[in-house]
Amino acid sequence: MLFPAGFEARGFIFGAPLALALKCAFVPFRKPGKLPGPTVGASYQLEYGEDRIEMHTGAIQKGQRVLLIDDLIATGGTLAAGIKLIEEIDAKVVECAVVIELKDLNGKAKLGGLPLYVQVQKEGD
Amino acid sequence: MLFPAGFEARGFIFGAPLALALKCAFVPFRKPGKLPGPTVGASYQLEYGEDRIEMHTGAIQKGQRVLLIDDLIATGGTLAAGIKLIEEIDAKVVECAVVIELKDLNGKAKLGGLPLYVQVQKEGD
Repeated sequence: MLFPAGFEARGFIFGAPLALALKCAFVPFRKPGKLPGPTVGASYQLEYGEDRIEMHTGAIQKGQRVLLIDDLIATGGTLAAGIKLIEEIDAKVVECAVVIELKDLNGKAKLGGLPLYVQVQKEGD
Repeated sequence: MLFPAGFEARGFIFGAPLALALKCAFVPFRKPGKLPGPTVGASYQLEYGEDRIEMHTGAIQKGQRVLLIDDLIATGGTLAAGIKLIEEIDAKVVECAVVIELKDLNGKAKLGGLPLYVQVQKEGD
């Protein structure tokens, strides 16, 4: 069983159909305070300040395999936080998938060598 | 052509797969300030205060048929705002679809007689 996890909000648009196609449960990674139950989370730096993602405790469990999905990778902060969160619960990210990679920002370097599936690479401005 | 439009953020989870199944473009209705281009929007009352939804100008055009999708209908304020927005651009909502209806809150009464597709009705607390 693979757990496709998508980042709020545009990651939901691509993660949910992918989960359906894979016949796997979709796990939403949400902004702080949005999930009704107990959560686990990870924080990450923005250009100015900090942000955080959260998922329901137990939505993904120890040893499970996770596919992280977002619309876009820029500096890689969001995906790196997703990887950190999954590692902290002793599960395993097997791949990250995005529609667009802003290549010049080299976000891929923050993914610890994990495979990154990209549909469109964008260079320069 | 039908335009499935989903409300940020949980409406994206159900709207995107539905758009894919219908082979139609998915239109995100987002919270204020999230869309990069020019927008049209509609405001609605919350229990305390006000909220607003926005879509990209031209994402849906005059005369087009729209399916509004959200995870849940409670008091119906969000869906009613979606209907108002679509009517203001002279397009037509043909149906609203939700996973859960909180029946006691009678949100259906705010939909101006439009069909409401519901998967799960929940009564009482």
